[in-house]
Amino acid sequence: MKLKIYRKAHFNAAHRLHNPDWTQEKNDEVFGKCNNPNWHGHNYVLTAEVTGELDPATGYVIDIKILKEIIQEEIEERFDHRNLNLDVEEMKGLNPTAENIAVVCWNLIRKRLEPKYELKIRLHETERNFVEYDGNI
Amino acid sequence: MKLKIYRKAHFNAAHRLHNPDWTQEKNDEVFGKCNNPNWHGHNYVLTAEVTGELDPATGYVIDIKILKEIIQEEIEERFDHRNLNLDVEEMKGLNPTAENIAVVCWNLIRKRLEPKYELKIRLHETERNFVEYDGNI
Amino acid sequence: MKLKIYRKAHFNAAHRLHNPDWTQEKNDEVFGKCNNPNWHGHNYVLTAEVTGELDPATGYVIDIKILKEIIQEEIEERFDHRNLNLDVEEMKGLNPTAENIAVVCWNLIRKRLEPKYELKIRLHETERNFVEYDGNI
Amino acid sequence: MKLKIYRKAHFNAAHRLHNPDWTQEKNDEVFGKCNNPNWHGHNYVLTAEVTGELDPATGYVIDIKILKEIIQEEIEERFDHRNLNLDVEEMKGLNPTAENIAVVCWNLIRKRLEPKYELKIRLHETERNFVEYDGNI
Amino acid sequence: MKLKIYRKAHFNAAHRLHNPDWTQEKNDEVFGKCNNPNWHGHNYVLTAEVTGELDPATGYVIDIKILKEIIQEEIEERFDHRNLNLDVEEMKGLNPTAENIAVVCWNLIRKRLEPKYELKIRLHETERNFVEYDGNI
Amino acid sequence: MKLKIYRKAHFNAAHRLHNPDWTQEKNDEVFGKCNNPNWHGHNYVLTAEVTGELDPATGYVIDIKILKEIIQEEIEERFDHRNLNLDVEEMKGLNPTAENIAVVCWNLIRKRLEPKYELKIRLHETERNFVEYDGNI
Repeated sequence: MKLKIYRKAHFNAAHRLHNPDWTQEKNDEVFGKCNNPNWHGHNYVLTAEVTGELDPATGYVIDIKILKEIIQEEIEERFDHRNLNLDVEEMKGLNPTAENIAVVCWNLIRKRLEPKYELKIRLHETERNFVEYDGNI
Repeated sequence: MKLKIYRKAHFNAAHRLHNPDWTQEKNDEVFGKCNNPNWHGHNYVLTAEVTGELDPATGYVIDIKILKEIIQEEIEERFDHRNLNLDVEEMKGLNPTAENIAVVCWNLIRKRLEPKYELKIRLHETERNFVEYDGNI
Repeated sequence: MKLKIYRKAHFNAAHRLHNPDWTQEKNDEVFGKCNNPNWHGHNYVLTAEVTGELDPATGYVIDIKILKEIIQEEIEERFDHRNLNLDVEEMKGLNPTAENIAVVCWNLIRKRLEPKYELKIRLHETERNFVEYDGNI
Repeated sequence: MKLKIYRKAHFNAAHRLHNPDWTQEKNDEVFGKCNNPNWHGHNYVLTAEVTGELDPATGYVIDIKILKEIIQEEIEERFDHRNLNLDVEEMKGLNPTAENIAVVCWNLIRKRLEPKYELKIRLHETERNFVEYDGNI
Repeated sequence: MKLKIYRKAHFNAAHRLHNPDWTQEKNDEVFGKCNNPNWHGHNYVLTAEVTGELDPATGYVIDIKILKEIIQEEIEERFDHRNLNLDVEEMKGLNPTAENIAVVCWNLIRKRLEPKYELKIRLHETERNFVEYDGNI
Repeated sequence: MKLKIYRKAHFNAAHRLHNPDWTQEKNDEVFGKCNNPNWHGHNYVLTAEVTGELDPATGYVIDIKILKEIIQEEIEERFDHRNLNLDVEEMKGLNPTAENIAVVCWNLIRKRLEPKYELKIRLHETERNFVEYDGNI
């Protein structure tokens, strides 16, 4: 039997939406107040969805303690109380939109999961705005 | 890369479930207290899910400000503080169940979105009852 | 020992804000879209707060099953799936603002509670707009 | 037109994660504090997702009152205020992980639904940990 | 300036409402399904409210890291994944109603706080049922 | 009759906790990761509570549209998508803890309210950490 397992986590970070290849006018036009040079920030909520086979011995698809640890090490320790433009190596050269953050989170968790699992990431930037990525390219 | 973008919105409206082709007895039997001739109402929560390709220049699949405006113009201005049986042209002749409202919302937003995007609508009538429609016919 | 006990309940109703002593212009100016003659509606959330002494035999201040029944009989059966302007005897002659609904709910629950208890009512009209009444006159 | 209809319900239950074929050491290693012999418990939240065709006469995919009754009879009456290891016939011989509870809930609701409907179950054990099952084997 | 600081925490526990001085009939009559001899359980949510003076050097009333640690050591380590009737020394001889758990939590946190602070505890047993205690006797 | 009226609003901002009179070591010790020189941020939730007399002509204590406008002009336009250390005149010289932000918000809204109203501010920095201020000095 195949099931999906979900684990939610949080991180609080600063960011600024900005494309350095554009003029200030173009940046203001596209990113508006999200382009504030002094930054703003969010309480991000990440939900990892892992799909896999039920192990009859444990009754688990994946031990959620292990999934929780992967998220803590890969996401919370890297992103929490950080500036997403300046402090996170994996975000360098990327505009820290919810989309790009979700793709980076997917890549970070993916490399820690056994290949037999499928992975999807949902990332809330606010209660009303969120994105989802499943590795589809 | 393909991602999904979500935007949540709200509208507060009155409605009554009723099939004019049926007797009052049949209406009462099927729709119960939802058939109150003096109406009742809900705080509806609409979530639009848009699927599309990531634009590397912006880091956006769709500018969420544009999606927010489409929802405000097509949904909130049309449905908020209205009677869904009497006040909304697009609902005429339809029983305003959550299902039918979701289909109408999907049609209204769909015609404003570029063809390259896919659209799904989730509509909460209450915290415990909700529906989803993706244009599938 | 004195503690507070809370019980939450829901009802979905239609209403219209309107003062019949005023002109249509004054009503529109003060109540705006809430004055729609065809009604609109809300998912109301009522929280009753009861303050009283801890009974050492039960470990209860009040049996929450009894409080739940009082709210069902006095509030849910009276207000749920109703029109607050037309269908509820106790609202007659009152403009059904969140404030007036909360006062009516307080009076209805108060008369069912033993005098030894204190009562406060919180009423959510939306997630962002709510009121509280404790019988203070 | 095909839509999805969702209904949320709750039950509060005790459980203990334990594999009787394992040593106590192995159980402690795998299940940690979830293996407490004196039990612990959760407020479970079950969401049933039913997919089907819109009936133009009612505007319903399924009458949500019927879905609510199925969930009350099959899930709430069976699981609420129970011990999932000791009190529920259908859980006998199963480790009551969220995964296994979701599979049992799916089977119980599935046999009450007409074959024309598809069913998916989401089960929250906590706000941060949840699972999903759609009958996939 | 005096402010209130709040910190929320969670614990998942089993319990049974029962008065050993009563007959089984009386216990069933008063506690109903909460008297299940095989236990049931909840995801409890505790909110500690601390009132105190603003320290101008830190901008804090109390360092919330310290409040978080007190709650972890006194409440989460003691109550999480435990049986409130069997496993918690401080609950011995008490019927584990939300009221009695809140009083025990208040006492445990109070003795760790400096006397200059006031303390109130809110404890959610479910999303709809909760209690509050501020040390009032 | 006296009631309380509540209005909730949101703003997303960057900040850094830091006391310029202290050494870097002392700042790190007291503020930990909140002292990151590159900032971090939050989705703040502000709830304004206004206490006043019920006006029998309107059924309002205060027109919530007016309260909403005051919060938009004084709080959202000033704090949203800003850096609370650098961009907000009223925060200059203050460490932007939740406590200090709440006091500044209280002062900004207080001066816009008629003297007959009482005001309390609740400010959520995260879902688990929040503060409350009512002008008490």
